[in-house]
Amino acid sequence: MTFATLVASLDDDLARIEQRVRGAADVEYPVLGDVLTAIVEAGGKRLRPVLLLLAAKPFNYDITTLAPAAAGVEMLHTASLVHDDTIDKSQLRRGQPTLNSMFDNSTVILIGDYLFAQSAIMTAETLNARAMSVFATILANVCDGQLREIFQSHRIDQTRAEYERRIFGKTASLFAGAAEMGAILAGADDESIAQLRAFGADFGMAFQIVDDVLDLRATSEQIGKPANLDLRQGTVTLPTMLYLAHANGSASVSQVRRAVDGELDTDEEYSAIATLIEESGAIEQALEAASEYIQRALDRLDIVRDAESRDNLAAYATLALNRTS
Amino acid sequence: MTFATLVASLDDDLARIEQRVRGAADVEYPVLGDVLTAIVEAGGKRLRPVLLLLAAKPFNYDITTLAPAAAGVEMLHTASLVHDDTIDKSQLRRGQPTLNSMFDNSTVILIGDYLFAQSAIMTAETLNARAMSVFATILANVCDGQLREIFQSHRIDQTRAEYERRIFGKTASLFAGAAEMGAILAGADDESIAQLRAFGADFGMAFQIVDDVLDLRATSEQIGKPANLDLRQGTVTLPTMLYLAHANGSASVSQVRRAVDGELDTDEEYSAIATLIEESGAIEQALEAASEYIQRALDRLDIVRDAESRDNLAAYATLALNRTS
Repeated sequence: MTFATLVASLDDDLARIEQRVRGAADVEYPVLGDVLTAIVEAGGKRLRPVLLLLAAKPFNYDITTLAPAAAGVEMLHTASLVHDDTIDKSQLRRGQPTLNSMFDNSTVILIGDYLFAQSAIMTAETLNARAMSVFATILANVCDGQLREIFQSHRIDQTRAEYERRIFGKTASLFAGAAEMGAILAGADDESIAQLRAFGADFGMAFQIVDDVLDLRATSEQIGKPANLDLRQGTVTLPTMLYLAHANGSASVSQVRRAVDGELDTDEEYSAIATLIEESGAIEQALEAASEYIQRALDRLDIVRDAESRDNLAAYATLALNRTS
Repeated sequence: MTFATLVASLDDDLARIEQRVRGAADVEYPVLGDVLTAIVEAGGKRLRPVLLLLAAKPFNYDITTLAPAAAGVEMLHTASLVHDDTIDKSQLRRGQPTLNSMFDNSTVILIGDYLFAQSAIMTAETLNARAMSVFATILANVCDGQLREIFQSHRIDQTRAEYERRIFGKTASLFAGAAEMGAILAGADDESIAQLRAFGADFGMAFQIVDDVLDLRATSEQIGKPANLDLRQGTVTLPTMLYLAHANGSASVSQVRRAVDGELDTDEEYSAIATLIEESGAIEQALEAASEYIQRALDRLDIVRDAESRDNLAAYATLALNRTS
């Protein structure tokens, strides 16, 4: 099953969520409304809302409560991208100019805050305290991940555990929380909620590892943002860590060290580092780690009794590995 | 009754809230823990938690649920100050260096987000969906007020209604929400919840008007941040609006216009504008508007049957007018 087929099966429900997400762009400040509309429409694949719905399917699926939560999760993701772009000083995201390239820093901070607030309001519409509590935890995890990324940048000597904790916060926590919320709102039993949360977390870890690989491997055109951004920002990701573990002591390591220290200048220098890492086999190894996460995610689906729901979740899981952007 | 007496009557409960607020500063990132501790300890008067407790007193007062909500409201306020200072590029707040003067912009954005997340987590601990919904609304209102402040800056021709809407969002919404949450968590009836929310809103409006007056009147030493900051940022506040309404057509107006347009340079030039506004009687008039809000707040207390609770809320209300910093 492809993602398109999966999405088609949720068509009406996703349309409802989409409408809710777009409603948040309906503000009366001059200029801002159009800009917000552009952001939410640029929108990506709505992977998090899809997961939330899929996690609810095996249980008491009621779109009336699920829709605001799914819109809230998507909006939380969008808000974190807005702040992320300010932090990264990125000019492009999903091939579109970022807010950053249009407004001053202060306005962008507030727009991000505004979107966070909208996401909280959407989640509050569920009137489900437990789901709202999951929402608050996601928010904390995402900030934790991003703070770790800042404080760990330009540090070549980090452990795999540090990397995993950071990408859990930054990325996997949102998928974990989306699946958890879906299950909670559909009245799943605690064991199913825990397993579906873990499924989301494993998926998210794989998703971020593949993202880190794409950052090294793809061109700017393919990923809609500058290539090798992690290297440029001194963010050490799994492929780089695996490369360093093997290449320890070799002459090329000093060039990677210079990249992490932010001492390289040209696109070509950064591309050369990416090629070095690619040719060492470290990227293949990172992708294997991603596959292992997906395997673990699939194993967790034993708890889902309904065959169709289980198949859909399994199809969703494999998406992480087939990304090209 | 003084604020000190009021606070003394809530002593143990406030200590519990204080502990919860300080707990949020307990993070493992290098440097950041100390900085967060400094921020939460600089802390101010904890006016919002005090209001939350006072609004709960006439009903089923249980500090176990009230404490996390009160800590959450205080933390939300702190988070908004952190982003506010980034936006204002302020170097001082409450007489202390701001985060801004210590970290780069990106880190400060994330620290603000982190504190927002902590405030959401604290509120979620109440396990009360309605209180969490109020929390989400406060967050949206605060952002709305701050966005309005940015989009309305350097505009001399704004209406009183625009000003009121802006300060409601920026300041009064937090007091309104604090009182509302206190009443909700203590199981008050809907009419009492509505009246106490309105009490908080009126108090907050008066509080911000007095704040705007202090910005024009006080020296930097008194308020612990630069004097005449509003004028410098082109933020038109009530005293300036009242001044302009009277002075319409007079020669001095053009100098105020230049201030709002951000065309003045020296401290002396800004002080001269402040003196002009003061001498016109516009500040006294603004303070009268604040008094009217407080009178309206006091009238709302008829709904509170318990005499001691009512007296405490009345004493709290008059605080707004007696501020010197």
